[in-house]
Amino acid sequence: MTLQMDKKALQVFLTEHFPQVADDYVVDEVNEDRLVLRLAVDHRHLRPGNTVSRPTLFALADVAVYLAILSRIGPEALAVTTNCAIDFMRKPAAEADLVCDVRLLKLGRSLAVGEAYIRSAGQADLVARAGLTYSIPPKGSKKRG
Amino acid sequence: MTLQMDKKALQVFLTEHFPQVADDYVVDEVNEDRLVLRLAVDHRHLRPGNTVSRPTLFALADVAVYLAILSRIGPEALAVTTNCAIDFMRKPAAEADLVCDVRLLKLGRSLAVGEAYIRSAGQADLVARAGLTYSIPPKGSKKRG
Amino acid sequence: MTLQMDKKALQVFLTEHFPQVADDYVVDEVNEDRLVLRLAVDHRHLRPGNTVSRPTLFALADVAVYLAILSRIGPEALAVTTNCAIDFMRKPAAEADLVCDVRLLKLGRSLAVGEAYIRSAGQADLVARAGLTYSIPPKGSKKRG
Amino acid sequence: MTLQMDKKALQVFLTEHFPQVADDYVVDEVNEDRLVLRLAVDHRHLRPGNTVSRPTLFALADVAVYLAILSRIGPEALAVTTNCAIDFMRKPAAEADLVCDVRLLKLGRSLAVGEAYIRSAGQADLVARAGLTYSIPPKGSKKRG
Repeated sequence: MTLQMDKKALQVFLTEHFPQVADDYVVDEVNEDRLVLRLAVDHRHLRPGNTVSRPTLFALADVAVYLAILSRIGPEALAVTTNCAIDFMRKPAAEADLVCDVRLLKLGRSLAVGEAYIRSAGQADLVARAGLTYSIPPKGSKKRG
Repeated sequence: MTLQMDKKALQVFLTEHFPQVADDYVVDEVNEDRLVLRLAVDHRHLRPGNTVSRPTLFALADVAVYLAILSRIGPEALAVTTNCAIDFMRKPAAEADLVCDVRLLKLGRSLAVGEAYIRSAGQADLVARAGLTYSIPPKGSKKRG
Repeated sequence: MTLQMDKKALQVFLTEHFPQVADDYVVDEVNEDRLVLRLAVDHRHLRPGNTVSRPTLFALADVAVYLAILSRIGPEALAVTTNCAIDFMRKPAAEADLVCDVRLLKLGRSLAVGEAYIRSAGQADLVARAGLTYSIPPKGSKKRG
Repeated sequence: MTLQMDKKALQVFLTEHFPQVADDYVVDEVNEDRLVLRLAVDHRHLRPGNTVSRPTLFALADVAVYLAILSRIGPEALAVTTNCAIDFMRKPAAEADLVCDVRLLKLGRSLAVGEAYIRSAGQADLVARAGLTYSIPPKGSKKRG
């Protein structure tokens, strides 16, 4: 399947649709097999103990899978997250960026399933792993539910 | 089981340990059976389409179950989220607070399981439902992993 | 919402469509708010340690939520499970039946979400809790994916 | 980390501890990185529509991750499943065996997390993907909860 959006197009999309957070995220790589999204960790993402907050990890996985779906079906899509299962496995390094590696396991007509592996930059061990399902509304549809 | 922390003690704990977000949350109710946490929704929680962001919903569920566990075992605990499964079911109302209703399904020696039901204030329909597992380290333990 | 299938109709459906397992299950109750499915535990469901196997618990939750959906939308539906998150919390009693209490959290046009609470008959503590999502194909649809 | 149990030892363990189902499963491969478990599909695993039942898929993932943990920590372990999140993505081929490919994402002192990818033998597309958490009781422990 050919890509509908490349790195630059995804980054522009982020800036236009998520201006509050777009500067935090960099699309490091996108191709037919995977997408890699990097989060520049700063003090706003930290919690007591100098660790990255879990909502920050969740958000990273959610945005990364969303972008992977858009890269395949294009920006007009209104995909919405319906489900997420996430395992938090290790404390991230406080001073390092977070890198999220995404694969799409299924891209059906109405449902897409992706998985996201989050690591501290430069480290092999997993910080977290998430599986997310997105509902893709039929084209021309305005309502979701 | 008697409560180790009441509404006021939980609110003080939030202010001390999560100063960045403590003002957003109000413990509406806590007893042996449930805890209700309210999020005062403001513009920082919203996303395009005037909807509350999913990381905000995740954070609400995570904090609420955490406080429910603390209310039972006391503030010295170092419980950490190991797993979350969350279903996003309906778009929250944009102008309403969010109310998160928590029950603990299990409070074992090393694992606690809680569930969180999120609704827009004053509405019956569910916005989201989450199940979370926390690992509770042995007393005196310093390390987790 | 009115029921499309009552206890008797669901039991007949089970016998016709799942003859291998229909005798194991009894629909104890079904109404607009909940469905209760009982599993007559016998030696085929047990594992070493005289405990009910986890696939047996999973199957009970899966069938129970499926029947709850059918009770609302009728037997012609081709709902398929797309996702399940299940927490195993306590060992079931070996000699007791299992009782599964189901509520539907959402019944949308294309997705239904239900939750199932499993207990040993006559006991208050939870053995397991599951959340399941079903995809409901459009009427007249033959293919799913 | 060296293996505590090889293919043959795992197969013997299955026969001793799970005699009802041991003949269905073959450990195709086990090493430090992965374990592959094959299910010989027969009529007992099928449901109407000639498809493999979802409890059969769940059981395959559960057993496979369990064996992967045993291969690392040895047969005296009393690991118990505490949580499973499973996505059902495609209908398995009716006449083909099922192959389950497992990786351990974490093997901590008290918790292990594994993931299982299920495919019909000889096919690339995923039938299902599961993440499972096991609680590992302290050595010498008799009770779990």
